[in-house]
Amino acid sequence: MKQGLLIVVSGPSGTGKGTVCERLLASTPELAYSISATTRQPRAGEVDGQNYYFLTREQFEQKIAEGDFLEYANVYGNYYGTPLGKIQERRAAGEDVLLEIDTQGALNVMQRCPDGLFIFLLPPSLTELEHRIRGRGSETEETLARRLGNAKKEIQIGRKYKYVVVNDEVELAVARIKSILTAEHCRVDLNTELFEVLQDEKR
Amino acid sequence: MKQGLLIVVSGPSGTGKGTVCERLLASTPELAYSISATTRQPRAGEVDGQNYYFLTREQFEQKIAEGDFLEYANVYGNYYGTPLGKIQERRAAGEDVLLEIDTQGALNVMQRCPDGLFIFLLPPSLTELEHRIRGRGSETEETLARRLGNAKKEIQIGRKYKYVVVNDEVELAVARIKSILTAEHCRVDLNTELFEVLQDEKR
Repeated sequence: MKQGLLIVVSGPSGTGKGTVCERLLASTPELAYSISATTRQPRAGEVDGQNYYFLTREQFEQKIAEGDFLEYANVYGNYYGTPLGKIQERRAAGEDVLLEIDTQGALNVMQRCPDGLFIFLLPPSLTELEHRIRGRGSETEETLARRLGNAKKEIQIGRKYKYVVVNDEVELAVARIKSILTAEHCRVDLNTELFEVLQDEKR
Repeated sequence: MKQGLLIVVSGPSGTGKGTVCERLLASTPELAYSISATTRQPRAGEVDGQNYYFLTREQFEQKIAEGDFLEYANVYGNYYGTPLGKIQERRAAGEDVLLEIDTQGALNVMQRCPDGLFIFLLPPSLTELEHRIRGRGSETEETLARRLGNAKKEIQIGRKYKYVVVNDEVELAVARIKSILTAEHCRVDLNTELFEVLQDEKR
């Protein structure tokens, strides 16, 4: 059984990774989604076990102690983490798994899973990024200023990724990521069995 | 100016690279085609300067002596070669250039242009490959047997490429190659200017 890909979509907060990943999943039924765990409060409409596993601080720290996370981070006072076991199961079964995480988490995943497919989402500009974060309406002026300040630094982390996708239009960004997945599935090093089959074919 | 990609599509003869590249070019207007030179006789419908530059043996050997070829090879008694100058010009102008060559030629291009994007086309099976070569009707039994014998060896050369695309259906193969081109244009190492622009942006 060919192992599935671990697709890591990341980028500064406000870049729109949530929306992009949602549309990507909706139009790619064979793609499994890795649900993160977090201690932050659910936003309006977010469902436990679907958007996130919403945990208490105590529950989260218990799981850290048990080694249950591929990565975890404390961002603006809240924990975010990626449960490891389900990802391993799904990849072993040949499924591609999508992981949407912040840049700090992605750096940790790079250490643990260097075979991951790291895709960095960029905003078209910092002005547009500010506009989007304001539009979300869930930030105070203080957290907004902190996020924007961090974004400029975070953006440079993207240089460590394999692919960069500008999220100018959601549908375009999704199409580019789908192309990346198709291309990666054509990599020779992931398809050596094709050469073996033709080598062995009698005629 | 960002340099264009050199896209090398190759595979055993009879795999259908000609048809795949034709459809790819027809549906990708921004892709430039590198026209090969050859000393073989034109097939029905082939036009000089469009399908190939048809040269005499003397003309071809003159150009070899002048270093005009990115690669050239003698295949079944005929020369095939890739004029170098036009490829360099177009890539420097930011255009992607498509090169359709046999496996022997591609190995030479790998030496000269390791930054090329090497895509190997595979037939779905050897039986199907034989069927396609027979269908072309331009082979004697002798050259057919030689081509099929070589094909099995040639296929293993594909392991040296970056991507492998099975030509089960022409439109599917073309779509996969288009995805590969899109993905390659998202490579971080080809887009460092995106990070520089955002680094420098004032807000």
